[in-house]
Amino acid sequence: MMNNPSSSLSPSLALKCLKSPDPQETHKGNSPKHESAAGRSVPEEVLPKLVEEALVWSSLHGLVVGDGNNKRSGAVPGVGLVHAPFALLPVPFPTSQWRQACELAPIFNELVDRVSLDGKFLQDSLSRTKNVDAFTSRLLDIHAMMLADNKKEEIRLGLHRSDYMLDAETNLLLQIELNTISCSFPGLSCLVSELHRSLLNHYGKHLGLDSKKVPGNTTVSRVAHALAKAWNEYNNSSAVVMFIVSNEERNMYDQHWLSAELMERHGVNTLRKTLAEINEEGKLLPDGTLCVDGHTVAVVYFRSGYSPNDYPSESEWKARILMEQSSSIKCPCISYHLVGTKKIQQELAKPNVLERFLENKDDIAKVRKCFAGLWSLEDPASVGDAMERPEYFVLKPQREGGGNNIYGDDIRETLTRLTTEGGEGLSAYILMQRIFPTSYLSYLVREGICHHDYAVSELGIYGAYLRNKDKVIMNDQCGYLMRTKFSSSNEGGVAAGFAVLDSIYLT
Amino acid sequence: MMNNPSSSLSPSLALKCLKSPDPQETHKGNSPKHESAAGRSVPEEVLPKLVEEALVWSSLHGLVVGDGNNKRSGAVPGVGLVHAPFALLPVPFPTSQWRQACELAPIFNELVDRVSLDGKFLQDSLSRTKNVDAFTSRLLDIHAMMLADNKKEEIRLGLHRSDYMLDAETNLLLQIELNTISCSFPGLSCLVSELHRSLLNHYGKHLGLDSKKVPGNTTVSRVAHALAKAWNEYNNSSAVVMFIVSNEERNMYDQHWLSAELMERHGVNTLRKTLAEINEEGKLLPDGTLCVDGHTVAVVYFRSGYSPNDYPSESEWKARILMEQSSSIKCPCISYHLVGTKKIQQELAKPNVLERFLENKDDIAKVRKCFAGLWSLEDPASVGDAMERPEYFVLKPQREGGGNNIYGDDIRETLTRLTTEGGEGLSAYILMQRIFPTSYLSYLVREGICHHDYAVSELGIYGAYLRNKDKVIMNDQCGYLMRTKFSSSNEGGVAAGFAVLDSIYLT
Repeated sequence: MMNNPSSSLSPSLALKCLKSPDPQETHKGNSPKHESAAGRSVPEEVLPKLVEEALVWSSLHGLVVGDGNNKRSGAVPGVGLVHAPFALLPVPFPTSQWRQACELAPIFNELVDRVSLDGKFLQDSLSRTKNVDAFTSRLLDIHAMMLADNKKEEIRLGLHRSDYMLDAETNLLLQIELNTISCSFPGLSCLVSELHRSLLNHYGKHLGLDSKKVPGNTTVSRVAHALAKAWNEYNNSSAVVMFIVSNEERNMYDQHWLSAELMERHGVNTLRKTLAEINEEGKLLPDGTLCVDGHTVAVVYFRSGYSPNDYPSESEWKARILMEQSSSIKCPCISYHLVGTKKIQQELAKPNVLERFLENKDDIAKVRKCFAGLWSLEDPASVGDAMERPEYFVLKPQREGGGNNIYGDDIRETLTRLTTEGGEGLSAYILMQRIFPTSYLSYLVREGICHHDYAVSELGIYGAYLRNKDKVIMNDQCGYLMRTKFSSSNEGGVAAGFAVLDSIYLT
Repeated sequence: MMNNPSSSLSPSLALKCLKSPDPQETHKGNSPKHESAAGRSVPEEVLPKLVEEALVWSSLHGLVVGDGNNKRSGAVPGVGLVHAPFALLPVPFPTSQWRQACELAPIFNELVDRVSLDGKFLQDSLSRTKNVDAFTSRLLDIHAMMLADNKKEEIRLGLHRSDYMLDAETNLLLQIELNTISCSFPGLSCLVSELHRSLLNHYGKHLGLDSKKVPGNTTVSRVAHALAKAWNEYNNSSAVVMFIVSNEERNMYDQHWLSAELMERHGVNTLRKTLAEINEEGKLLPDGTLCVDGHTVAVVYFRSGYSPNDYPSESEWKARILMEQSSSIKCPCISYHLVGTKKIQQELAKPNVLERFLENKDDIAKVRKCFAGLWSLEDPASVGDAMERPEYFVLKPQREGGGNNIYGDDIRETLTRLTTEGGEGLSAYILMQRIFPTSYLSYLVREGICHHDYAVSELGIYGAYLRNKDKVIMNDQCGYLMRTKFSSSNEGGVAAGFAVLDSIYLT
């Protein structure tokens, strides 16, 4: 596997192993891409019916978000609703890579847990990032505080999502990132699979597609199951699962699907609170019990709190610390959160690091196989390679939230500036192999309008992990999220820009 | 029953039998009303949670309409959605009157069918209305044309809704009107019952209410079943059910629920067309088959076409005639449509008229028991009584669509004007006993905001009737619609103004 040993090599060496795409044929300005003839074309007379049926289906089945054009839509449920943006048809995906991604989920679940227990590894690996990234620095402070207090999390709940792209040249499944906090779309991703199955049940014959090839997606029920199991471990039937939310949340219905499932299937009550509210209303009882607004909190589930923007004042940090000090089950606890940083992703890709945390050689090989090339900029050779051939790299800042990645000529500019400035600025970034996924001709529907162009997709696999001090209670793959965006706005990932929800068509 | 013989008497005689409400105590300007202490009060700390949960539930479960503030919401599905206005809690309703209303449905179904077969009765009863109401006149012309052509509708499908109010003084169930065309809310009415059951499952203990006392509502599946049965009688597996719709329809999701049920449960395709489109695209084959846009139409289901506004040009009337001439099953056919006019309602309330159409004496008694006082203005005594005590009457124009009824001093003005003008103007109206239902303290939620005040409710019972030339295939009660509006805007019915969807709590 050319990309496995590469993580420890200078990028130039690693890239020589990649079959280089012909720039004349496949590069388009700063966005090299592969276009495939495998895209779908829906007959003109069928298309409007298909779009209308999909829009109706979304409205009737709660595949909705708040409409940015409506000021109240992020705060008041039931008003300013619009269908969630979606792809009209599922995206082709090879069965073997699909299975590979699913099999990786429990291994990554275990890896996160193991790494989280090595406080020194986390602190050491992130020590330079700490100096240049204020947000990571605050997280590390909390982590250090818990280490100093010898605070143990005996019940640990992880709800992760590992995001992948398929490299078009090699057909390799390569990891983009591993999310350990606030993984969105467990609710809506399921609905898109159902939407696509329903459309193919009605129009599959016209399109030569079979609805059975869209894998069923049960993320919402399995994630709710994991939250309920954790709630059960806490062992207080009057306690609640507390969702940490933003004041304004246009993606609230995705969260509400999870709350509804918790209530209807498991009889578990949900409390929705912002970090600021928790600071106002929360208190710790002497035994460590967290009470918020009169409710005992069994599980803290973060759907906010992953980005510096979520902490506009000290109040939010106080709330975070209060929760971390409590006996509530945190999803995630501070160390799980840190394991999801890009710097740790890069550290884990170094030779012999995975071996410190996993014993099973097959598991190690499987994980390593999905690592793209990842390099620290502390090595001047990496900087040189990236300056020379920036089109083969992505410069990723530690900063969370997506849309901050740097490509093409901007890589040169950024690296020149950081090198000139001296200091530790380079530590705020990691360098990653740029992945060129296959583009498919796609129909993306947003605000009731269908757009038709080449698009690329990113597959996220949800994982759920729960253990107490005695044993692992749950370690599962939970379902998937497919996101698609037009290649013209391709910046190597789909988190930024006009991305839509999609599903998989197994090939 | 004081209101039964009354229909043939002068209103003054009939009203003497009613226990007169004390004007000082119960009249409020032009809107006399009874207020009851039986209204509900939700504890202040529970109310916001209840409202939020209801708004979320509506968004996730398709209890939605197009938002009038969004220009595209009546034309494009999936955009500009807002929760349908709803009452937070079901309205108390006595079990015996509920049963009475349900039992009436098949009798009214049969009555409509019988009356529809008596072409001369329809033409004669409406002959004076014809001179003063252009819309009814056009309908009568089509009806006469079909009579002249000896056109027979061997398969007849009726989807009716009989609307009632409970008179507060007497607790009598009194019919407001019988709708034989375009009965709305078969989809959304079911969802409101489910919403209320779900809320009571979670909050019933706090509120002292039991979710089992909200009758289940299966209107959408039973109406779809009736449409599918009719489609089956037509006996052409490639034919469709055509919904006649408006260009702009903010209540489209109610209709889409029915289409979805037809497709998912019965595999029956729906076509949505405006009257103008049918005029453009429709044609009759020599055997009477109606083809629209390449589809054979098994069943024409009107969700538009009931009001003069639906026929802005001759094109729409041509479409109506084309359909009437075809062998498609019309829901309703022209004679069913005419049976639903207010004039026929008043004619049926005359002594010995029901006996012409129904044989079973029990059935006749049951129907008569629910008739409010109904009088023709051709009798000068009726005009005099209405002028003298207008607060006890409603003046109803033949014109359809709701919100056109005349109350209080406006009755005096209108009758004075019509009498002065001479001619047949009075024939455009019927005079009806005004019903004063009990007001309950209610929580009505619209555009995400909860309003709290006294409100009155109207119960609609859906009925489905299907027969072919040999036998009755279906004659059922199909579910119910409860609508509630604030008493302050009470104009004797809930069709006009800010009405919300509601359900029943059996007492």
